[in-house]
Amino acid sequence: MKNLNDLFLHGLMDVYYAEQQIVKSLPKLAQAAQSEALKKALSEHRQQTETQVKRLEQVFQTLGQRAQGVTCEALLGLVKETEDLLKETGSAGPVQDAGLIACAQAVEHYEIARYGALIAWAKQMGQQQIVSLLQETLEEEKQADALLNQLAEGNVNQAAAGA
Amino acid sequence: MKNLNDLFLHGLMDVYYAEQQIVKSLPKLAQAAQSEALKKALSEHRQQTETQVKRLEQVFQTLGQRAQGVTCEALLGLVKETEDLLKETGSAGPVQDAGLIACAQAVEHYEIARYGALIAWAKQMGQQQIVSLLQETLEEEKQADALLNQLAEGNVNQAAAGA
Repeated sequence: MKNLNDLFLHGLMDVYYAEQQIVKSLPKLAQAAQSEALKKALSEHRQQTETQVKRLEQVFQTLGQRAQGVTCEALLGLVKETEDLLKETGSAGPVQDAGLIACAQAVEHYEIARYGALIAWAKQMGQQQIVSLLQETLEEEKQADALLNQLAEGNVNQAAAGA
Repeated sequence: MKNLNDLFLHGLMDVYYAEQQIVKSLPKLAQAAQSEALKKALSEHRQQTETQVKRLEQVFQTLGQRAQGVTCEALLGLVKETEDLLKETGSAGPVQDAGLIACAQAVEHYEIARYGALIAWAKQMGQQQIVSLLQETLEEEKQADALLNQLAEGNVNQAAAGA
């Protein structure tokens, strides 16, 4: 990677891989969740993530590049931590839900960081159309994080404390 | 993990491990950085991280638990991505610096997510002293992230675009 374009493209491939893994992972989390509101939030975020994958494909296209991913070790680590949580909490319930929310928020924050950098680089490269596409996704990730906060603090953590 | 205390303790062990890895990792990043401002930010954040480790030890003590870590796969993934970046950019310069900032911000965001959940759980557990300790660290992580943004957008990304 010798210039900002190379760096941007590598980051794009990293989040493209990450979003595809998230599309696969979210249905498992939604299935594991006990809270109906959490199930709904995770299912809806899965649909949103599919749109985000398509947006990334538009970005590749704008750059005249074939859409492809590159293994994202951080995301794999986050998925592994989520799987460990499901094993260690054992069964569905508010404690598992509280842990699931925290894991999902860690994924959201990974994406917030990566999209933030990609947007700053795209601005520097004068790629305004790409900035707009990525900005849309960034706002969705921030909203998803805020919704998970609401679920945790509104009800799930209190239920977990009573478990 | 059967209750919120178990979940909290596991999360605490996870960030304790993460912060210790970050203490080891930051000097390597500071050494690799070309920008003097970035070198300084990374070195100062290392000192700050040592204080954060001590705060976590106070939290363990408050809970009457021995301070110990548990492997944090997400953080290991983030460290691996940073090492790959250093390899793939090859030598010190603004492109590597721009990538380093993005990797450091991904680590900050991991911590922001994890401390956010720990604080919400500690509040629910009525552990006000623990909330205060973790809140101090959370504010530092947010400030570190904001400073990295300033460095990227102030100068480093522009220099990388000219590389």
